Amino acid sequence: MQIESAPAEPSNVPSSNAENPVDGPRQIGIFLFDGVEELDAVGPWEVLAYWTLHHPEDGWRVFCLSDRGADVIGAKDLLLGAHHSVASAPALDVLVYPGGVGTRRLLRDPGHLAWVRGQRAGVPLLTSVCTGSLVYAAAGILNHRAATTHWASLNLLSEIDPTIEVDVDARFVDDGDLITSAGVSAGIDMALHLVARLAGIERAQEVRRGLQYDPRPPV
Amino acid sequence: MQIESAPAEPSNVPSSNAENPVDGPRQIGIFLFDGVEELDAVGPWEVLAYWTLHHPEDGWRVFCLSDRGADVIGAKDLLLGAHHSVASAPALDVLVYPGGVGTRRLLRDPGHLAWVRGQRAGVPLLTSVCTGSLVYAAAGILNHRAATTHWASLNLLSEIDPTIEVDVDARFVDDGDLITSAGVSAGIDMALHLVARLAGIERAQEVRRGLQYDPRPPV
Repeated sequence: MQIESAPAEPSNVPSSNAENPVDGPRQIGIFLFDGVEELDAVGPWEVLAYWTLHHPEDGWRVFCLSDRGADVIGAKDLLLGAHHSVASAPALDVLVYPGGVGTRRLLRDPGHLAWVRGQRAGVPLLTSVCTGSLVYAAAGILNHRAATTHWASLNLLSEIDPTIEVDVDARFVDDGDLITSAGVSAGIDMALHLVARLAGIERAQEVRRGLQYDPRPPV
Repeated sequence: MQIESAPAEPSNVPSSNAENPVDGPRQIGIFLFDGVEELDAVGPWEVLAYWTLHHPEDGWRVFCLSDRGADVIGAKDLLLGAHHSVASAPALDVLVYPGGVGTRRLLRDPGHLAWVRGQRAGVPLLTSVCTGSLVYAAAGILNHRAATTHWASLNLLSEIDPTIEVDVDARFVDDGDLITSAGVSAGIDMALHLVARLAGIERAQEVRRGLQYDPRPPV
């Protein structure tokens, strides 16, 4: 199911999770790793952090996490800092998994794939940008699900799991408890959709205005 | 002069500069500071680094610099690493000055404004994203020039220097040796224009494809 043309509805996500039954802010974690494509992570970061910092009353927070909490070096050689390690991070309500050349190593790492499956079991909403969905596919969690990825990796996504209903045209695919998006810059659109889904269309429109997101590609 | 509707032309920038007369790569520096708006910096970074890493034969490099070379904390609390300090950085052919709340401090810092004026004297092409142009204005280098900024700071730009021809509609304003852009996400469009200007439209189109920059804001 692709919701690009359907109205976004506030909060399909449960208001708490098993690990954090006490009423507190709901948590969005962006997973960082060596070789993460910088804009894959920072596009959604900007959208989600603009929202959560300007509207703490909505009850959401966003942070970045990495395997051991260390800084990472992006695919294009920019250092990005994590706020938490996987072990120290608050329990997540939403995971954002960016893409980048670093995913090629992660999708062959059995320990990491076990962690991803654990996230699927415990996190109500999994999202990805670009080739982040390749890791989800390798972990088996896209089996018979609708999904997308960077245009250059669409074939690879199908090779990893032929049961995936690959949407080759979507900017992002909202399949309920799973949202995957197209390449790199598509994470911005996906994150705005996420704000609309979690906090309403008007809030997402406000974030869009704040980022002056009226794109006009000059070429 | 706004070149959004005019054809971009390859390389109006000199092929070397006074500090680096030996023929080597030309250098683009993105200035980082505490309180830099993350996407202001990382949008252009992604565009420019995609270009320079995939096409080293074009003879350009991009890096991030900060005052003392230290990591910075962005306006939304993301840590970003610098590759060089101002003192250790290669001489620049292009400076990219992002915006963010941190500019409010910098535009009142006489020592920093002197550094900016020094960049104007030595760097062939100065560019800015969002409220980065406020610092340029405070340094006096936008006097009687065409420029823009984030929509919420257009009045402030005029207050800092009433001689500026403020373009309230442009996504970016190319005024020759000076390019300023609108808010946050506009840096992506400005950077693509920069690639088109320095390496041709086809190269910029290739970068756009690589980042799958076919934006479809969902709200």
